[in-house]
Amino acid sequence: MYAHPGVKTDPILLVPETMKAWVLGDPGELRLIEKKVPVPKKAEVLVRVDAIAICATDLDVISSGPPALIQGGLPFNKDFTPGHEYMGTIAALGPGVDEFKVGERVTVEIHAGCGQCKRCRMGMYTSCLNYGLNYGDVDKGHRANGFTSDGGFAEFAINNINTLTKLADDMSDEEATLVVTAGTSMYGLTELGGLIAGESIVVIGPGPIGLLGVAVAKSLGASRVILTGTRDNRLKTGLELGADHVVNVTREDPVEAVRRLNGGKGVDYVLECSGAPNAINEAGRMLNRGGKMCLAAFPHDPALIDVAHLVRNNIYIYGIRGEGRSATHRAQAFMADKRFDATKIHTHTFMMEDLPTALRYARDRVDDAIKVVVKMPRRAAEQETRQAS
Amino acid sequence: MYAHPGVKTDPILLVPETMKAWVLGDPGELRLIEKKVPVPKKAEVLVRVDAIAICATDLDVISSGPPALIQGGLPFNKDFTPGHEYMGTIAALGPGVDEFKVGERVTVEIHAGCGQCKRCRMGMYTSCLNYGLNYGDVDKGHRANGFTSDGGFAEFAINNINTLTKLADDMSDEEATLVVTAGTSMYGLTELGGLIAGESIVVIGPGPIGLLGVAVAKSLGASRVILTGTRDNRLKTGLELGADHVVNVTREDPVEAVRRLNGGKGVDYVLECSGAPNAINEAGRMLNRGGKMCLAAFPHDPALIDVAHLVRNNIYIYGIRGEGRSATHRAQAFMADKRFDATKIHTHTFMMEDLPTALRYARDRVDDAIKVVVKMPRRAAEQETRQAS
Amino acid sequence: MYAHPGVKTDPILLVPETMKAWVLGDPGELRLIEKKVPVPKKAEVLVRVDAIAICATDLDVISSGPPALIQGGLPFNKDFTPGHEYMGTIAALGPGVDEFKVGERVTVEIHAGCGQCKRCRMGMYTSCLNYGLNYGDVDKGHRANGFTSDGGFAEFAINNINTLTKLADDMSDEEATLVVTAGTSMYGLTELGGLIAGESIVVIGPGPIGLLGVAVAKSLGASRVILTGTRDNRLKTGLELGADHVVNVTREDPVEAVRRLNGGKGVDYVLECSGAPNAINEAGRMLNRGGKMCLAAFPHDPALIDVAHLVRNNIYIYGIRGEGRSATHRAQAFMADKRFDATKIHTHTFMMEDLPTALRYARDRVDDAIKVVVKMPRRAAEQETRQAS
Amino acid sequence: MYAHPGVKTDPILLVPETMKAWVLGDPGELRLIEKKVPVPKKAEVLVRVDAIAICATDLDVISSGPPALIQGGLPFNKDFTPGHEYMGTIAALGPGVDEFKVGERVTVEIHAGCGQCKRCRMGMYTSCLNYGLNYGDVDKGHRANGFTSDGGFAEFAINNINTLTKLADDMSDEEATLVVTAGTSMYGLTELGGLIAGESIVVIGPGPIGLLGVAVAKSLGASRVILTGTRDNRLKTGLELGADHVVNVTREDPVEAVRRLNGGKGVDYVLECSGAPNAINEAGRMLNRGGKMCLAAFPHDPALIDVAHLVRNNIYIYGIRGEGRSATHRAQAFMADKRFDATKIHTHTFMMEDLPTALRYARDRVDDAIKVVVKMPRRAAEQETRQAS
Repeated sequence: MYAHPGVKTDPILLVPETMKAWVLGDPGELRLIEKKVPVPKKAEVLVRVDAIAICATDLDVISSGPPALIQGGLPFNKDFTPGHEYMGTIAALGPGVDEFKVGERVTVEIHAGCGQCKRCRMGMYTSCLNYGLNYGDVDKGHRANGFTSDGGFAEFAINNINTLTKLADDMSDEEATLVVTAGTSMYGLTELGGLIAGESIVVIGPGPIGLLGVAVAKSLGASRVILTGTRDNRLKTGLELGADHVVNVTREDPVEAVRRLNGGKGVDYVLECSGAPNAINEAGRMLNRGGKMCLAAFPHDPALIDVAHLVRNNIYIYGIRGEGRSATHRAQAFMADKRFDATKIHTHTFMMEDLPTALRYARDRVDDAIKVVVKMPRRAAEQETRQAS
Repeated sequence: MYAHPGVKTDPILLVPETMKAWVLGDPGELRLIEKKVPVPKKAEVLVRVDAIAICATDLDVISSGPPALIQGGLPFNKDFTPGHEYMGTIAALGPGVDEFKVGERVTVEIHAGCGQCKRCRMGMYTSCLNYGLNYGDVDKGHRANGFTSDGGFAEFAINNINTLTKLADDMSDEEATLVVTAGTSMYGLTELGGLIAGESIVVIGPGPIGLLGVAVAKSLGASRVILTGTRDNRLKTGLELGADHVVNVTREDPVEAVRRLNGGKGVDYVLECSGAPNAINEAGRMLNRGGKMCLAAFPHDPALIDVAHLVRNNIYIYGIRGEGRSATHRAQAFMADKRFDATKIHTHTFMMEDLPTALRYARDRVDDAIKVVVKMPRRAAEQETRQAS
Repeated sequence: MYAHPGVKTDPILLVPETMKAWVLGDPGELRLIEKKVPVPKKAEVLVRVDAIAICATDLDVISSGPPALIQGGLPFNKDFTPGHEYMGTIAALGPGVDEFKVGERVTVEIHAGCGQCKRCRMGMYTSCLNYGLNYGDVDKGHRANGFTSDGGFAEFAINNINTLTKLADDMSDEEATLVVTAGTSMYGLTELGGLIAGESIVVIGPGPIGLLGVAVAKSLGASRVILTGTRDNRLKTGLELGADHVVNVTREDPVEAVRRLNGGKGVDYVLECSGAPNAINEAGRMLNRGGKMCLAAFPHDPALIDVAHLVRNNIYIYGIRGEGRSATHRAQAFMADKRFDATKIHTHTFMMEDLPTALRYARDRVDDAIKVVVKMPRRAAEQETRQAS
Repeated sequence: MYAHPGVKTDPILLVPETMKAWVLGDPGELRLIEKKVPVPKKAEVLVRVDAIAICATDLDVISSGPPALIQGGLPFNKDFTPGHEYMGTIAALGPGVDEFKVGERVTVEIHAGCGQCKRCRMGMYTSCLNYGLNYGDVDKGHRANGFTSDGGFAEFAINNINTLTKLADDMSDEEATLVVTAGTSMYGLTELGGLIAGESIVVIGPGPIGLLGVAVAKSLGASRVILTGTRDNRLKTGLELGADHVVNVTREDPVEAVRRLNGGKGVDYVLECSGAPNAINEAGRMLNRGGKMCLAAFPHDPALIDVAHLVRNNIYIYGIRGEGRSATHRAQAFMADKRFDATKIHTHTFMMEDLPTALRYARDRVDDAIKVVVKMPRRAAEQETRQAS
């Protein structure tokens, strides 16, 4: 029986003492083990993971570790559980938590800042200066679940209450796993200015963030929204999510196409989600003077950038990491209101025990996979009990 | 006699019908000619140029034309007068102008926006979308004196009243020519956030904008202010203008030095004024997570940029052009208040007839020249008359 | 024949030399006269008025003059034409205008700033410091059509191109007259922060700005949107426009109701559109600590305000005038995208010759009038010609 | 001996187990008792109070309790220690704290937000929605020392590390107690826009916040700075702190005087620090269109406000509480840099045992008291030891 001082649980949603969890072995290796169910501290809850989506970054974490320095070094063979795009049901409340109730459905964002550093004090918790300092002796309270603290490829996970968004009742578990992706797109658009109704934007790269970037931009009223990419099926999904125009860059020059589609003028914003080495240069030429671009992706190697063009045209560039400024809340609000159907990017579903297969589908884009979601077997009786009550 | 309908002149400061003006001949060639004194229109004044500083960009304009497309093509052999860092005395008022009086001393900023485009409507007049559209049939009202409209290497120049800042009585003509440079530094710091008292900043490159960037940052209360460069004499000037520390990058690694000088941490801001190909990469590594850099200079060729580092660290980059957001007014206020002594970067003075020599000093940094100022012979009697009145 | 140097007209949409226009006689008196068709200057166009909505402020202007000092005094018996919520067809272009074409359908916002004052330079053109200075000798270029310059109760009107928004083809003339009202609501929400998806807001007062405030807030994703008022039919319209809840303040205490409907907590924002003397105090108690309120209306007499409550709770108050920060463009984008049906507030239509009756309906709320729209007899043949071309 | 698990102390600065502390008895009554020295938790330190200034709000707290609801009701007869404007020496570090060292001199700000609520997540920690929820069963982590948690009229106090600012070595203890007051002024100017070099401002009311408001505004480059008040000696202090002009409102109409002193125009900003019932109306008429005012004080009773004037002139009003947005850091930076001499408002000094007398001087303005500072007897030997080490 899971019982800890100050922690509130629930007679219906029984929490076991141990759980099944995928953990990192050697680089690239995932193992399914039995692990202790973690215990929420002050301002934390225990979330029973109901569904989790796979992000390209998960693949990187599994093969090479998180993209930032972490106290204690790389997380291989340390029983570390990756996975960060999950949703679930609150299973236990840490001491003093009354903002949530056991049994509530929530989705998560990744970053919980330390609350003490300069960035956190400014509200920039995704840029917490104590990033990764939550292992061992020094615990500054920062968590980036699936990166520097245990994530969601497991039955349960700990979340700071700052990382939770309550879910509309009629939003499916699968859709709810996509809130954090939409939240990343929303964060990018927020930094670009936010009030973009009637303004023109190009989204480069129809990956998940780009496709939901199209949807969020359209929800905010942007016009025109132009999506560029190389694969027609993804561009087609972009049209379904609200793009006014799509450009297949294998068939026409994207800069020329954008200017033509925008009435001969540059656009106001570019959301770059491709990570292509030349994307910043193309973005710079798509923009009009004084335009802004957000980089939600990046090439792994240094890229040749025409800096002169950017400076001469007073262009501002926002490199973003994660889903800051409470953007997941705004994304969830639009999704709850049915402004766009994020599930259009959800292509495949697997059960948690089949995670390796799910990861392969995501990595190799098997069967044109975009978002692969992994689900937990729901405890049926428990669920019925709750619904009856 | 200079007399035009609706234009107010002055009995003391007599305006002739023609004036001496330097104009562009072939690329690299300047000629001194006699030209008609121009006539101010609505919201414009005629400024008698009393002094003008030479900017590195002037050298570029003279040799290759302005760095942006201009309606009508390159300005060679068209009686175009370059020069943009000038100050002077108001000599005539265009129709309806009552914001200024004839005889007032003013300094100028470069850009007058069209007032109609999207950027101007947002207050971003230095990014006017009608940049350069003020020749020939289509006059959208934009002016960038010395770039797209006649500048200050002449006895008189036309200025939109938006480009004028009144001067403190005790500010010398020479010092007043430096307001626009300080205004460019101020604009950069404004875009970086502006409220930087107690925050740390690195200025890369001790050219005029960098050196006054040090001074403005210190005036705004920044601490620590670290200046990096290659020449000890310029770094010494930086110390005199308020730098807490200087780093000669020929002797130590600037990224390591900055972190050491800032207590082991990254800084909050970088103002990049060197245009060195690797400056953005170094700036990215000087900054802490969530930091910001402003690019006030740029390499002429594309540079290899480690974009991944910038995105992973949520770094924002502001390419600036000019002296927007009324930054010259703020810079002048600090200078009028003696917060820093901008004249420390003023190294040489020539008379207007010796402009070619002055340009050579600036270009070749003869005698360690930083800012070279060119002065007009003042009409002595007239000056005395005014002072007596 | 209407022909003026530099002004472009159109062979189809013939512009006469004189037009019918309603003008102010004595206070409260409107007369229909024949007036010269005005001539657009630089950056201006001539708009043929096709439809115009009546605003409560029109009634004030007609009875007492505009609510701000105007150069030259009150506009009675000076052939001044009021009316400011109009849309129409571009009939002629001033010198150099190429941003629009003759024949394009546009709707207008009220304020064209002077472009030279401190506020205009910041992008705050609705707070132009040269407000009203466009009569007689000093013309600073400011226009507030229907307030300080001739408005739209006439066949034609002059508009600065800054005040125009192009219309979607399928937006009716009647709907298009409502863009400026929606733009005022949008401006208020912009100043409150703009990014309000998932945040809670109360709109006080179901007049036109309040009702479209509900619609715009919902379009921006706000949740919950609560509308308070005294008349059930208007509150019902509010529900149709997107309010999640309505409160009839004649039946329950609005502060208690709001807290109950918002889960026991204060809301994030209040948009006050009632002008009730106690509205600010109620708004202050509806808000949570650090909340913001926008005042889009005001009581005519000084009101007793509990300032202590506002200061102790770190509440910010934004008094707005008009439809600044290009908010009409954003409002039009949402309307073109069918995010809400603004025509739900359009209750009555009259022809221009019946303007006095239309004004009476608006003033006395005859037959539950909300927005009364006045239309021009369209020149049928001309219209057919254009559509065929 | 003071020894607690995880808490680091110091061999030199020995911490006793109990301390002398003033506590609230009945309303208006202060008693000096012996109390346990409190123990810092995670992200907290123990500060040995070296000096503390008296704020007018302290007098209110002592007589009537804090101005906000606190969990557990009024703090009388509960051994509650008031006092919030203190500085001191770090005496012990809570578990995991490495941002500070024992022995460092620090000054404090009042508010430590919970870190979890919506406002804290936005960086608005002074508007924490869990204000006062730190007693008894529910501890959300919020602290407002001297208001809702124990303050500084004692030998030791607990501070969240977020509330600490390190001090320049050459800043006296007395001066350091004034940082929080200057920080409040700085917060107000921050909300007004911050970048005020060359802009005009009126400060109403020469109390401590107003006088340091003058000093901070001048440090930020404001011009002109006009101070209004009723007492010539305080206005004289304002001139010493940087006011360009002062207006004694007992001798001339402040609105007329301000317009005259500002060249016939309204000013850009007003910082209202008087709490006079008519101050908002006067401020509204001092401002130009689109101007902003900050309310750092308030009348205790509702005041008659001319709301119409504020709305018609697009005036924004910022009610502030405390010293948010890390303003104390910026204030300390200016003070460390000797931009102004805050000690000009420090008029009297008492020892802690004489607190009642000190409070009387502050309350009754005995001997023209402005800021009264209370000092602790320093442990001389210890101090020498540290200096020698």
